[in-house]
Amino acid sequence: MRLSRFFLPILKENPKEAEIVSHRLMLRAGMLRQEAAGIYAWLPLGFKVLKKIEQIVREEQNRAGALELLMPTLQLADLWRESGRYDAYGPEMLRISDRHKRELLYGPTNEEMITEIFRAYVKSYRNLPLNLYHIQWKFRDEQRPRFGVMRGREFLMKDAYSFDLDEAGARRAYNKMFVAYLRTFARMGLKGIPMRAETGPIGGDLSHEFIVLAETGESGVYCDRNVLDLPIPSASVDYDGDLTPIIKEWTSLYAATEDVHDGARFEAEVPAERRVHTRGIEVGQIFYFGTKYSEPMKALVAGPDGAEVTIHGGSYGVGVSRLAGAIIEACHDDAGIKWPEEVAPFRAVILNLKQGGSDTDAACEQLYRDLLAKGVDVLYDDTEQRAGGKFATADLIGIPWQIMVGPKSLAEGKVEVKTRSDGAREMMSPADIVARLGAGTAAS
Amino acid sequence: MRLSRFFLPILKENPKEAEIVSHRLMLRAGMLRQEAAGIYAWLPLGFKVLKKIEQIVREEQNRAGALELLMPTLQLADLWRESGRYDAYGPEMLRISDRHKRELLYGPTNEEMITEIFRAYVKSYRNLPLNLYHIQWKFRDEQRPRFGVMRGREFLMKDAYSFDLDEAGARRAYNKMFVAYLRTFARMGLKGIPMRAETGPIGGDLSHEFIVLAETGESGVYCDRNVLDLPIPSASVDYDGDLTPIIKEWTSLYAATEDVHDGARFEAEVPAERRVHTRGIEVGQIFYFGTKYSEPMKALVAGPDGAEVTIHGGSYGVGVSRLAGAIIEACHDDAGIKWPEEVAPFRAVILNLKQGGSDTDAACEQLYRDLLAKGVDVLYDDTEQRAGGKFATADLIGIPWQIMVGPKSLAEGKVEVKTRSDGAREMMSPADIVARLGAGTAAS
Repeated sequence: MRLSRFFLPILKENPKEAEIVSHRLMLRAGMLRQEAAGIYAWLPLGFKVLKKIEQIVREEQNRAGALELLMPTLQLADLWRESGRYDAYGPEMLRISDRHKRELLYGPTNEEMITEIFRAYVKSYRNLPLNLYHIQWKFRDEQRPRFGVMRGREFLMKDAYSFDLDEAGARRAYNKMFVAYLRTFARMGLKGIPMRAETGPIGGDLSHEFIVLAETGESGVYCDRNVLDLPIPSASVDYDGDLTPIIKEWTSLYAATEDVHDGARFEAEVPAERRVHTRGIEVGQIFYFGTKYSEPMKALVAGPDGAEVTIHGGSYGVGVSRLAGAIIEACHDDAGIKWPEEVAPFRAVILNLKQGGSDTDAACEQLYRDLLAKGVDVLYDDTEQRAGGKFATADLIGIPWQIMVGPKSLAEGKVEVKTRSDGAREMMSPADIVARLGAGTAAS
Repeated sequence: MRLSRFFLPILKENPKEAEIVSHRLMLRAGMLRQEAAGIYAWLPLGFKVLKKIEQIVREEQNRAGALELLMPTLQLADLWRESGRYDAYGPEMLRISDRHKRELLYGPTNEEMITEIFRAYVKSYRNLPLNLYHIQWKFRDEQRPRFGVMRGREFLMKDAYSFDLDEAGARRAYNKMFVAYLRTFARMGLKGIPMRAETGPIGGDLSHEFIVLAETGESGVYCDRNVLDLPIPSASVDYDGDLTPIIKEWTSLYAATEDVHDGARFEAEVPAERRVHTRGIEVGQIFYFGTKYSEPMKALVAGPDGAEVTIHGGSYGVGVSRLAGAIIEACHDDAGIKWPEEVAPFRAVILNLKQGGSDTDAACEQLYRDLLAKGVDVLYDDTEQRAGGKFATADLIGIPWQIMVGPKSLAEGKVEVKTRSDGAREMMSPADIVARLGAGTAAS
């Protein structure tokens, strides 16, 4: 993409309304525009990040055997009356009346609707286990939306729902999502630590929140420092095999949100030098809730002996739009965002330090074509901006690889390559940087 | 994907509520479930089709130089008061009040919001031309939703918006979208014929609807038969070049919807034997509306001489969810759907005609692995269903390539391959069908 043809409305000033760094940087980097309180348009740069996050979530859900579908944003109020949550949900539910005065609502979550779909079609234990997910916009009418996409009202979420014949099956489904989440957040360059958590309005008696440690997080968390260094399951993990060793490893070390924190246990189990008490950002939460929805909504299947069985369920959420903010909270410096490669809007940017110079222009054009040919998603800053401005923009929008093409180094057949994550700089030939980035693409 | 692990709730009975064939087949093939009047959940098979359609639309928008962003589903009522459309829109607009009694609406289209985004950031002619699009769920509160996804209330639409300094620029933007639409529908196996059309509530004085001819279409259309055989611009079309020869070729032959039909001109211009009068399905519409939104909403830029200029705009819609229905209307027979390859939910299906037989099982497993390794999106019907049931399911869900693995032909080292589009059958070795389908994948 040529920057001269892209839509990247960089803000020079720090926007007053942004209280936290991710919100500030998303506005300044031209990723986001507020259209109403807690309701945002994702501008092209932000949209690219959102899509990359979504795709990682999707790939790991599919790997774990979940099946993607897509439920609508609007739901019938009557569906929520069946579960008893219509009145219980309170003012965060956006209630809507259509032209025929039928009561609708903008879905904040989908346990009821997926249970309705399940009971309409699945009649036998032979069709279990089943895990259905979707990635769709939801709405929660927050009293005070703030922090940009971290606590918005219209937000993109992945929610999966598992259906099993009994609790043992449901726990296997829970474990699959537990492992999938470990992989999902790690691929985004995050440490998403599973912590015991309250179940809240979803219900049930088993739940983990996946937490990214950050001082700006919304909840206090307590954990054993060693949990930060546990190994992430590999892509070849066998989801049909026994996952309990992985679960045991991750849950044997203390990690809990403040809501369920047990101070006495924390001090008994964790040596003082390994006790971490900080704040965290919730990026996902998983629940086992048994028959909470299947019982009132009559989601029954015929068991092996022909008798009807009420299915056991769980649900599994990832805050897709929130993750864009969470990643920035974890990956930034004073100059701007430092995107991990897997979620970066562009993997590399070419900075033409002398736009209009015939040598630099020719070298940049060649480099741009060569990188595109290798499948590298590259931005070419071909604007008339001065070099200093180009450096600042590249740092602000956080592109992992910056390739600086200036007349002096070019005379020696070199370009300067800076990696945004650590600021390291290296002189290399255009052919070498094409080979290095091209190899990464082929491998991924 | 193994069918035993997929969620494909085939209906044996014809659903009573479905009045047209696409609605009937989408319900029967387990693609869709109605959640409220005109509001649908896309089950896994339907979701896969929807994503393939969306991706073709996206690729052709990008090829034409449009930039993708994502606007939210909900909008502020005040934005629509600026353009004067809030009161004009009538009962099809779903109006919503949030917990603080702020007036919102579920966006039926986005001219106002994109103009708000544009005017916030773009101040100079140097940033033009600009074409921004998104693919997002919209809502129109139809008085009587019907025909499944063809006239739903919550629907997925691609809408692009162009911004230019003057009418000449806006017409170039219009022509780019015109050509992109020709390519978009052709890639889906459709003839999407551009026809002169009314502008309706979007406004403006130039508009084309892209129409797929079908007896079940919602509007009458008139055209010269020769328009059906015009060549589609190739993928290498130069969008920065002069597109007027393509536009002239397509618009010089008579083609109009009944709303703007001119009977006298039709008879004067089109020889009797080439006159087509039938019905059609609108799958896209493009508009040039000049300053209709930029003037009241003050979308101005500084022109080359420094004076402020009101920009000229157009908008360009594709009915993404509607296309799933339109394609079925155009591509089906009594047995079910006949998906064109580019939008098929799976490209091939392996039918194990003797599930549990060691030879057929082994051959199917090998074929399944080999096709996956070649990147072929393949479904393996490994269920216990009898052969007749497997044939019927494969025909109903419309997979383009059916590979039948039975003990008799397998003894001769062959499988039977049927192409769904024409019913042709051919005996070939497993290696040959892998090579044939694998080659198609590499080339695409």
